[in-house]
Amino acid sequence: MSRVINFSPGPATLPSYVLERAKEDIWDYNGCGIGVMELSHRSAQFIEIIEKTEALARRLLKIPSNYKVLFTTGGGSNQFSMIPMNLVEDGQEANFILSGFWAERAATEAEKFCPVHIAGSTKDVGYRSVPTDFTLSKNPAYLHFTSNNTIYGTQCPSEPKIEANVPLVCDASSDIFSREIDVAKYGAIYAANQKNAGTAGVTTVIIREELLARSKERLPVMMNYKTCADNNSLYNTPPTFSIYIAMRTLEWIEQEGGVAQMSIRANQRAKLLYDCIDRNELYVGYAEENSRSSMNVTLHLKKDSLTAKLIQEASNRGISGLSGYRTMGGLRISLYNAAPVAWVEALVEFLEQFAINNK
Amino acid sequence: MSRVINFSPGPATLPSYVLERAKEDIWDYNGCGIGVMELSHRSAQFIEIIEKTEALARRLLKIPSNYKVLFTTGGGSNQFSMIPMNLVEDGQEANFILSGFWAERAATEAEKFCPVHIAGSTKDVGYRSVPTDFTLSKNPAYLHFTSNNTIYGTQCPSEPKIEANVPLVCDASSDIFSREIDVAKYGAIYAANQKNAGTAGVTTVIIREELLARSKERLPVMMNYKTCADNNSLYNTPPTFSIYIAMRTLEWIEQEGGVAQMSIRANQRAKLLYDCIDRNELYVGYAEENSRSSMNVTLHLKKDSLTAKLIQEASNRGISGLSGYRTMGGLRISLYNAAPVAWVEALVEFLEQFAINNK
Repeated sequence: MSRVINFSPGPATLPSYVLERAKEDIWDYNGCGIGVMELSHRSAQFIEIIEKTEALARRLLKIPSNYKVLFTTGGGSNQFSMIPMNLVEDGQEANFILSGFWAERAATEAEKFCPVHIAGSTKDVGYRSVPTDFTLSKNPAYLHFTSNNTIYGTQCPSEPKIEANVPLVCDASSDIFSREIDVAKYGAIYAANQKNAGTAGVTTVIIREELLARSKERLPVMMNYKTCADNNSLYNTPPTFSIYIAMRTLEWIEQEGGVAQMSIRANQRAKLLYDCIDRNELYVGYAEENSRSSMNVTLHLKKDSLTAKLIQEASNRGISGLSGYRTMGGLRISLYNAAPVAWVEALVEFLEQFAINNK
Repeated sequence: MSRVINFSPGPATLPSYVLERAKEDIWDYNGCGIGVMELSHRSAQFIEIIEKTEALARRLLKIPSNYKVLFTTGGGSNQFSMIPMNLVEDGQEANFILSGFWAERAATEAEKFCPVHIAGSTKDVGYRSVPTDFTLSKNPAYLHFTSNNTIYGTQCPSEPKIEANVPLVCDASSDIFSREIDVAKYGAIYAANQKNAGTAGVTTVIIREELLARSKERLPVMMNYKTCADNNSLYNTPPTFSIYIAMRTLEWIEQEGGVAQMSIRANQRAKLLYDCIDRNELYVGYAEENSRSSMNVTLHLKKDSLTAKLIQEASNRGISGLSGYRTMGGLRISLYNAAPVAWVEALVEFLEQFAINNK
């Protein structure tokens, strides 16, 4: 069978370049006679891989030199714990912007470790838009926000604007490397790699160096940012293959023209799909227009009974991964970096025809 | 270049079967049109992968039904925190047997969370043997031991014999699936997969179900065994590809004849190498004979100045991964499940010739 069109919300499709290189390197990495999964994490070859992955991330996002790039495990959910455990000092509160399910999870998890303050929320409007007004607590350790909300299909057009000099902490799991950002505006950015930057198993953390001083020694060893930074993410055996896949994916992004080019494509893909939704009565977008995500497009069918039929007909044409999140229903189309614009064109063609056939 | 002989201490060599299947499945898993890294962790295909991995582990180790099999992240070091955080109740002490570097690390980490008692140690003899006498504390939560010590090349011939009804907790990272064990004797067994059971990125935990009641809700979410168990290791996106590689590796072990066959081969490999050491004056084994490991063979050269020469000459013949641990020097040859007996025969032939040439 040939490969199908895959709009999975993550783990998501990877560039053919990455898969083809991985197939070779699994058997024999770079001609060294050992497969990439079989390399000691202390070998010269793997040190080169992890250093190259970091260097690529730095170039692509223009990460300033006073930031560390860390490779951790446990996904975004582990960061929901690590951020407050490392960054909240006595007498401080963790501040959160609630823009969706994962933002709520992050705030709930932080409550185990410190006082939590909700600085803004759009829960009352079903998370159809991202919050724009914020009220910080008295001694905020940081302000946490989720730049893109996969379930509701919303995305922050820019960083939250706050007057105070409070570190911004961003869960960028679903839009990192898809648009240019000014890293200097952030205290920390974290992202599980399996959407825009590789496969599952590794979570990238970009953190301003001065914040590492907040990490206490009593933290569980693998949850301590400072320990991770002091050991260049090699305190123990890291998820070597996931880091290798991150390297190949970032390599591909650079070859394709960098984050600027990823951003152009993201906008192209999203426009194709939102235009299709807007001109067909059958399709009803979920997100408010000014909060629409370029990564996850969410919609319902006017006749809800047609949803299963649409998903089945798409599947028959080799188009997969359209189901909405289980609590949302409808459709969700995830358009991460590796999804070719041509896939979206094929999907739009199908959606148009489906709308005609089901008038 | 053809593949070289790789005695790396881990991540370690993988069976050709695993690599060849991975090369296919990376592009198109089982004919579904999507590569294995690109499958949603909620997809039918991935659910099948994780369930099959668990079923294989259960069959291979004859795991009783009152044990859970969990897939976690962060390596053995994360277990050093999770074990005491989850299993020590108020008024209890964590008990440790010190048999080497990693056992010490486990005990030191536990001190962050609870009182620690050293029940036995062979530190005074440079960890050349494994402890055999144990004194437990008053209210032991568990007794932790390391079944195989990679750095010193020692291995427990059997579980520690204790009278009390105290759960045994075992770090089996370097010998799991290499010999038959009676799981019912253990409270918990954990192993980072990258030596005998796949690649880095996933850590398998086998835990008696009743112990899950000890996990407190206030724990960081990804460090809670009960949360992991309640969600069948799918609370969030797990390291999907590392789990897939574990599945293929366990599949291979089963096809080859199971753990009984792995054990026969482990003994063959170890005997070949220890016999070579014992009959050549140039080579001096590190471990006491009754504590010798079948997984990691450690030795020094009588003339230490020859060590670098030996490693270089081996490398010229396509034999790699012989260097001793950085604090130990000498040689360490790691002989995990996937290392063919023929590799050890080739190494022995080389070592014999080297001994003759350097008399």
